[in-house]
Amino acid sequence: MKEKLTLVKVGGAIVEDEAQLKQLLKDFGAIEGRKVLVHGGGRRATQVASRLGIESQMVGGRRITDAQMLEVVTMVYGGLVNKHVVALLQSEGIRAIGLTGADGDVIRSHRRPIKNGVDYGFVGDVDKVDDEALAHLIEQGMVPVLAPLTHDGEGNMLNNNADTIASEAAKALAHDYDVTLIFSFEKKGVLRNPDDDESVIPTISREDFERYKADGTISGGMLPKIENALAAVEAGVSQVIITLATAIDGQHGTIIA
Amino acid sequence: MKEKLTLVKVGGAIVEDEAQLKQLLKDFGAIEGRKVLVHGGGRRATQVASRLGIESQMVGGRRITDAQMLEVVTMVYGGLVNKHVVALLQSEGIRAIGLTGADGDVIRSHRRPIKNGVDYGFVGDVDKVDDEALAHLIEQGMVPVLAPLTHDGEGNMLNNNADTIASEAAKALAHDYDVTLIFSFEKKGVLRNPDDDESVIPTISREDFERYKADGTISGGMLPKIENALAAVEAGVSQVIITLATAIDGQHGTIIA
Repeated sequence: MKEKLTLVKVGGAIVEDEAQLKQLLKDFGAIEGRKVLVHGGGRRATQVASRLGIESQMVGGRRITDAQMLEVVTMVYGGLVNKHVVALLQSEGIRAIGLTGADGDVIRSHRRPIKNGVDYGFVGDVDKVDDEALAHLIEQGMVPVLAPLTHDGEGNMLNNNADTIASEAAKALAHDYDVTLIFSFEKKGVLRNPDDDESVIPTISREDFERYKADGTISGGMLPKIENALAAVEAGVSQVIITLATAIDGQHGTIIA
Repeated sequence: MKEKLTLVKVGGAIVEDEAQLKQLLKDFGAIEGRKVLVHGGGRRATQVASRLGIESQMVGGRRITDAQMLEVVTMVYGGLVNKHVVALLQSEGIRAIGLTGADGDVIRSHRRPIKNGVDYGFVGDVDKVDDEALAHLIEQGMVPVLAPLTHDGEGNMLNNNADTIASEAAKALAHDYDVTLIFSFEKKGVLRNPDDDESVIPTISREDFERYKADGTISGGMLPKIENALAAVEAGVSQVIITLATAIDGQHGTIIA
């Protein structure tokens, strides 16, 4: 039987709220077994860019990453946010190690090709996660803290979506571990009724999803999130949980399996 | 007999010159045996701080690191410079892994106490380098790339001098390896005559140093640099070389042993 590993993805909103972040990291520290954290930081990057006089261009919710913006996200995700999270985890007695995909060549991407006339710039699409290198660090008692940055093997850093990094890392680590992937989030889970915060759907299978999609229960931005979660499960991840940032103990939220 | 390890310290001036940096990283890649790189980045930090409207305060050549400046150096050293160097090394086939002292808890410091009325702010004095953790990464075929940042174990990052990080890491790794520490530099070595770039002193022992100090051959900023190098040798580092950034092959410069 494979050893249990929990991979938690923390979004930008929590990363930027010091009290919430500290609580989440405490809760993360309390999770038993092997662990990995993936963080975002987009709002902070937008702030720093704006202070530097660089305008953030978004297309369909995705940041266009020109050379200047690549420098900003490399600074903010790889430096400011990553090292802050690592230092806080260390203070909880967790042997965290901050990594981008370039570090130890753990995640390699290629630059996203121009599509429908949209050039996202230095944005990466993941080619390969080196689960063995990650597992080696994990077996030393380290807790990888992944920033949503990778590299192309040709000397360039690339900007990645943190949700994608989380699910790609989870899928790769499923070769080595019994992986639970937790997406922390501002709601208690996937809601049956968006106006009722208590209407959490406890579990969603592929079959349930197709039904909820057809009858309109699940729509909008939640569709790709769940599609992504189901793909992770179909690729070997044991379960994906979508839950509140204050409830990452594996007992709350919507379980996608 | 211990395995050979070469630790190269690259200063800020080279880090900021893309052509020079690429050449240095190629030369670094060509060094045989185990390797570690330590980089600075102070000028880049000053630029970014100034673009953010933060003034750099210096006392006796040392940066005062207030909370805002700590954010800047964490971004610039830990993110921008470190990941750029790591990505370039990866493109040379070197399995680089960028680390601050917080990552894997490899270097822990305490905040420098106020002395003679000067509060350096979030500046660290090194307490402990975990040479075993570094050696473990190195034995996996990784090449640590150390940014001049550490942590205090209480959740705070600290700003460190890159020369100090290089010599502290070299001293700790001397428990595990036969260490050569190379300080790359804008001169061919320690000069007998500051106006003659060819007047390199080939070797300096403790005895030589005391003589050169007494007769004024060596003075100013070179004094602490050589004192620091001799202390590293006295603590077990096999040799320290002060040399041009274009001549880090171990055959050029001033050898301090």
